[in-house]
Amino acid sequence: MRVFGIDCGTECTGYGVVEMEESARTPRLRAIAAGGIMLSKKETLPTRLARVYAELTALIALHAPAVVAIEDVFFSANAKSALKLGQVRGVALLAAANMGLPVAEYAPLSVKSSVVGYGLAKKEQVQFMVARLLELEREPEPADAADALAIAICHIHTAQTLAQQGISAAIAAPSATAAMRTR
Amino acid sequence: MRVFGIDCGTECTGYGVVEMEESARTPRLRAIAAGGIMLSKKETLPTRLARVYAELTALIALHAPAVVAIEDVFFSANAKSALKLGQVRGVALLAAANMGLPVAEYAPLSVKSSVVGYGLAKKEQVQFMVARLLELEREPEPADAADALAIAICHIHTAQTLAQQGISAAIAAPSATAAMRTR
Repeated sequence: MRVFGIDCGTECTGYGVVEMEESARTPRLRAIAAGGIMLSKKETLPTRLARVYAELTALIALHAPAVVAIEDVFFSANAKSALKLGQVRGVALLAAANMGLPVAEYAPLSVKSSVVGYGLAKKEQVQFMVARLLELEREPEPADAADALAIAICHIHTAQTLAQQGISAAIAAPSATAAMRTR
Repeated sequence: MRVFGIDCGTECTGYGVVEMEESARTPRLRAIAAGGIMLSKKETLPTRLARVYAELTALIALHAPAVVAIEDVFFSANAKSALKLGQVRGVALLAAANMGLPVAEYAPLSVKSSVVGYGLAKKEQVQFMVARLLELEREPEPADAADALAIAICHIHTAQTLAQQGISAAIAAPSATAAMRTR
């Protein structure tokens, strides 16, 4: 399974592509690509949004993921910054939708829990663990790229857990119908 | 000059196309089209955003405006609703940018002042005045369509005022350079 993670930001939108190599003897995570789409304050807002959309669309086409994972933002410092972030997030969701891909959303707490094992982990801890999990020589930069990789890893972990629960439920359940219900 | 006004909303995004007929003996405003893109809560967020983008792109292509005018939102009830509104706004700005059109942004206060003559006018007053200014048989519906027409009218009024100031400045100014500076 290949996942395209997006960490939306008004100054830099990070992306990270992670693949779960299931054919390997011991299944392991592998980083395919990661980076940041930097936005210039000199450009107009529509131009900036057009660039995020065009770059994300091109990157999704290039890496052909099965799913797009994005952070679910429920709160923000204030309404003004929430609106700005929302504009970028809307364009990112549109890029996924127009490429015909499903989108999975994860709360920041879930992403950090999944990668560091602690929901209130600091940015540096996330960067450190992302590098460990993906067996990278050095920590991915910018930090937004590490966050995007973390979101992708979170989706893979969640999908695995759900799949395992599905299997255990099927084994434990008395009938296939009950197993479906448990899922 | 033909203007495409957009009033972004998370449930309904209104649009309105207004043309300034300058060839007429007495220049007058004419409504070309108006309506609302209704969003269903049953659809996923990416699907909803994809629909707003696709419909706005098709409508802009159909009506071939010279410019897109949109409301500039600085505050909102809370951060959560600001983020949601931002997602729709981002997609609307992208539609304009990808159609190669310039975008003009106006604060709600400016829009109401321009149409009703009072920045804190109520929704009904805006609907009433939009119908009057565009010589419509009845008030445009939904209210979001009236708001979008109001935004388009605001841009036309602003452009006219700027053009008039440009002319006066050029006449009053001692040199072309000074006139440019005044502008």
